[in-house]
Amino acid sequence: MNADLRRERESASFHTERLTHLLDGGPEKTRRRREIETLALNDPELQHKEVNFLTCSERYDVAVKKSSLMVRKIQEHAISNPEEIMSFKRYVHRGRPEPLDLHLGMFLPTILNQATPEQQDRFFIPAWNLQIIGTYAQTEMGHGVVVGDIGPKFGFDDVDNGFLKLENVRVPRENMLMRYAKVLPDGTYMKPPSDKLTYGTMVFIRSMIVGESARALSQACTIAIRYSAVRHQSELKPGAPEPQILDYQTQQYKLFPLLATAYAFCFVGNFMRDMYHRITGDMNDGDYSQLPELHSLSAGLKAFTTWVASTGIEECRMACGGHGYSRCSGLPDIYVTFTPTCTYEGENTVMMLQTARSLSLSGCGKWQMASTLSERGTTPSLVMWWPRKSICSQLNSHFAGLIVRPDCASRAKSQQRYLFKSYTRAKSGQRLSGTVSYLNDLCNHIQPQQVAGRPPLANLDNVTRLVEAYKLRAANLVEGAVQSYHVELGCRINKEEAWNSTAIDLVRASGAHCHYVVVKLFAAKLSEITDGSIHNVLCTLFRLYALHGISKNSGDFLHAGIFNDHQISQVHQCVKELLAAVRPNAVALVDAFDYPDAILSSVLGRYDGNVYEHMFEWAKRSPLNQNEVHESFHKYLKPLQSKL
Amino acid sequence: MNADLRRERESASFHTERLTHLLDGGPEKTRRRREIETLALNDPELQHKEVNFLTCSERYDVAVKKSSLMVRKIQEHAISNPEEIMSFKRYVHRGRPEPLDLHLGMFLPTILNQATPEQQDRFFIPAWNLQIIGTYAQTEMGHGVVVGDIGPKFGFDDVDNGFLKLENVRVPRENMLMRYAKVLPDGTYMKPPSDKLTYGTMVFIRSMIVGESARALSQACTIAIRYSAVRHQSELKPGAPEPQILDYQTQQYKLFPLLATAYAFCFVGNFMRDMYHRITGDMNDGDYSQLPELHSLSAGLKAFTTWVASTGIEECRMACGGHGYSRCSGLPDIYVTFTPTCTYEGENTVMMLQTARSLSLSGCGKWQMASTLSERGTTPSLVMWWPRKSICSQLNSHFAGLIVRPDCASRAKSQQRYLFKSYTRAKSGQRLSGTVSYLNDLCNHIQPQQVAGRPPLANLDNVTRLVEAYKLRAANLVEGAVQSYHVELGCRINKEEAWNSTAIDLVRASGAHCHYVVVKLFAAKLSEITDGSIHNVLCTLFRLYALHGISKNSGDFLHAGIFNDHQISQVHQCVKELLAAVRPNAVALVDAFDYPDAILSSVLGRYDGNVYEHMFEWAKRSPLNQNEVHESFHKYLKPLQSKL
Repeated sequence: MNADLRRERESASFHTERLTHLLDGGPEKTRRRREIETLALNDPELQHKEVNFLTCSERYDVAVKKSSLMVRKIQEHAISNPEEIMSFKRYVHRGRPEPLDLHLGMFLPTILNQATPEQQDRFFIPAWNLQIIGTYAQTEMGHGVVVGDIGPKFGFDDVDNGFLKLENVRVPRENMLMRYAKVLPDGTYMKPPSDKLTYGTMVFIRSMIVGESARALSQACTIAIRYSAVRHQSELKPGAPEPQILDYQTQQYKLFPLLATAYAFCFVGNFMRDMYHRITGDMNDGDYSQLPELHSLSAGLKAFTTWVASTGIEECRMACGGHGYSRCSGLPDIYVTFTPTCTYEGENTVMMLQTARSLSLSGCGKWQMASTLSERGTTPSLVMWWPRKSICSQLNSHFAGLIVRPDCASRAKSQQRYLFKSYTRAKSGQRLSGTVSYLNDLCNHIQPQQVAGRPPLANLDNVTRLVEAYKLRAANLVEGAVQSYHVELGCRINKEEAWNSTAIDLVRASGAHCHYVVVKLFAAKLSEITDGSIHNVLCTLFRLYALHGISKNSGDFLHAGIFNDHQISQVHQCVKELLAAVRPNAVALVDAFDYPDAILSSVLGRYDGNVYEHMFEWAKRSPLNQNEVHESFHKYLKPLQSKL
Repeated sequence: MNADLRRERESASFHTERLTHLLDGGPEKTRRRREIETLALNDPELQHKEVNFLTCSERYDVAVKKSSLMVRKIQEHAISNPEEIMSFKRYVHRGRPEPLDLHLGMFLPTILNQATPEQQDRFFIPAWNLQIIGTYAQTEMGHGVVVGDIGPKFGFDDVDNGFLKLENVRVPRENMLMRYAKVLPDGTYMKPPSDKLTYGTMVFIRSMIVGESARALSQACTIAIRYSAVRHQSELKPGAPEPQILDYQTQQYKLFPLLATAYAFCFVGNFMRDMYHRITGDMNDGDYSQLPELHSLSAGLKAFTTWVASTGIEECRMACGGHGYSRCSGLPDIYVTFTPTCTYEGENTVMMLQTARSLSLSGCGKWQMASTLSERGTTPSLVMWWPRKSICSQLNSHFAGLIVRPDCASRAKSQQRYLFKSYTRAKSGQRLSGTVSYLNDLCNHIQPQQVAGRPPLANLDNVTRLVEAYKLRAANLVEGAVQSYHVELGCRINKEEAWNSTAIDLVRASGAHCHYVVVKLFAAKLSEITDGSIHNVLCTLFRLYALHGISKNSGDFLHAGIFNDHQISQVHQCVKELLAAVRPNAVALVDAFDYPDAILSSVLGRYDGNVYEHMFEWAKRSPLNQNEVHESFHKYLKPLQSKL
């Protein structure tokens, strides 16, 4: 092992394995996760090919082969827990999307949830046995059926995102999944008895994406921090040996706030997963009361975490200098695989506006407009190729290849009734619970106060006060956006225009709300930790996360009178001190994420730190190195020499 | 032409062609640019292949072919002006890097500048005739010569970035370019008589990169804004037709500040080019007085503009929804081609620290430390593969393939003497000129003032006051960083540690300085414009650029007492009004950049707006669509079906 990494690990102040247990949710969960990991990673049939040297078509071929094997192995190993199936899938494909993603993750669950018993008999078992392979076609135009691949993309080389063009095609009425919504023989569309019945898959996937944000960002941090401990460069003191680049404050400033964010998102991801399961349980008992909050929170946190993680991955890549551009670093692949989460399953800006609506709008029951850039219009994956027109209009037809999910047209109007009422209720003095409960205090706390009248924050160590600061900021921006909306309403013809003219304030308020939720959940996690040394290191990370966020958004905190000038200067100073405090544990903190080398797929992020030798070995396998001199020299350059 | 685009163009308030002239520097320059463009784009031998459907090796082959033809054509067309050669090169390769970039852009100029007459005879003509093709090898390790390609990267598929491994190799002393620096037969190294003599190429390339930032960002804006005018989605008013997505405030907020930035960077890029030529002229007359400012400014602006443009391109891509991920959008290619500018020719953080040093440090002549992450250690391109060790130690050898540029070891210590003195001079009451002249006012203006004591900014229209606001912010952050440095110096053992402990403050101060310079240069451009309608639309863009920047960095302006809370609220409101003001001219403003479709290489950004038909045509050419059913189905999925 590289001597620097060894020294870093030996000097960590906490027990890495115990922190891994905390992230997994207990030692038994860590054990089982590793067991599944081993099943996938050690299986000789599932060995990984270096995909970076393959063409697009070859990559797709490899991916289909692995997907086929995977389905068989899942049955052989009798893995039946859905989360364990997801894990196994992730290990087999090393975190990359794969050709059966939509089939397994959306098509099968949708049939289970929305098909009539007759349709289940007809579709489910053939689909389970891969005799039908489902995909997701959102939008279409025109009238013959033409299908094909949409061509090369930014990442997603292993998936054949397709186009589907229909010409003069009618789909049999019986192919629409009619457990809840129905189309009668005369073409009449019958709405489902409750909009809530169609929430399930969508909320599930958004909640899971929060966990994906944590995974992608923590992998990027692992690579960049390990490499920054291995790489030596320049000099801090004249004549002294070159220091590890992790000793430069600017490098710490790039990476440690992201490391803190990765931890925050891990806890938020676990919270969302647990919340989803809890509320699903409640729903099975007929209690839908918490569903709107889950819906609102999953939309906002999906957007908040994917934006932050997507940007953060690129920051990690650039922190690796020139080597970050090499595909052997693993970082380009992590980025192009992850960044689509900002767009699919609800485009992020639309998600933020949904959360804003739930936070801020009064007038419950009267408000019926579709959201700005309504959810219908968002891209669930890369399959959308033509202007949207409801697929329902193609029903009652003779083409049997299409199974229609009926919720597309009704979804936009069914937003967050519960949270929709939140602001009104708070204003009228009713008590709210859950993550919006701070709106209760709206009238008391969020008036911008005179800076001079506010006592300085004596101690920036105080976890509760930091959470409170984020709460006040969110409340202030929600209130500001609502006021702005009402001012616009006074100048505009209708609510829709006023809403559109306030949209950027609303997005900003949603972002602040989500930021508050993340800070609050991170703080809540701290109180659960019993191991003293782990508590200490996570407190440091929490403070870095919270204070860095205040430093970067100091205008919001100053403007709302939450902090004064002097306190903001203190915050900037504290951030620098916290970077130094994180430094000795940085490598151990990324080790605790426990990604095996096979999953990271990064020469720079190798656990043993033997970066340079392996970079050279990797490069030698490049197709351009298969001949001493590339044929293009003989074809083009050599003939030219004689002419010049 | 698409009806929406036609309407947008017809309703523009200014004459697009005249704005193009302004950007080019006059009608004659526009004419000549288009002439060269036509020579490249209409040449049957230089026709463009759709590279997205090719393998890496095929792309390289195409690029070498085009580069070879290009060299011949440049001679045939007698294009001799270096900038025109650059333009022709860009049109031939459609803005992508190409295999001869380093040969033409760095190798030939370096031989011209730094070789002795004897070396020029030996190397220059063979290099000019492509009998020697140069590259750039920065670092090496160990001892036989092994060369090869470094393998697949994030972009740069058309360039063979290589590795070079030396084992027991000695390079003849005569291969070191010895016009200025020398190695004597006994191995003694003789420094060049002046460090300034080695500045040239480096400063030139950094200045040019500022223009590249403008080009890349303006292309991305062109694509995203045209597509946002063509794409209709969702509804703003119930029952009304789907509006162009450019009518959504959130979409405008994503794109219009970037559009304003693209214009700002165009003007800054032109300024840097002119400044470079002016100062080079002065240097030929023996006047080096302005070189340090050019050096400092090119470092900072290179970093500032590439960071902003790199992030901005991704924002444009995401503003195109799912289609932004398709390679047919052109945006992934623009991003991966451009983002390396953040790392090569001086890593951005290092560049910012250089500018900070020049702005802030006193103690001239005594300060000798290498910069934090010194410039020597930065990656000039993707060629660095091993820990750095001076290539000079390999001299006096029998391997003739290496020509050595001797400036690598001496560069770090030769920073910005002129600007190094700026702060000291200002503090001692001397007058500074140039972009740092605001430091003259240091003692008078930048004390944080009581918010209450400051009169509200009556009119956010006032260009001069906005420039002034940015100046005060920069001065305040420079002063804050210096104070922070002195506080650290009191606690630390030495200057180097104090510098490292203040590094993030220094980077922040540099960023604010560069931001000020951009605002100032944009404002200066306004005063030159005689056409009233163009003046109006650029004033609107200027205000959007300036006020959006204040809104995003409101903490700095509040903290320094430059604006009070009420004014910041006004700024946020103004930004929204300016989005609406830009809206009617948005398409015409991107048209004025005058990129032909062949250069944009984007189906989404087509001038005629016929997006959807061409997207379909493009996709049909994908390799995965060459067979009805991909062979992987028969190989893997079909056999599996019978087993499940």
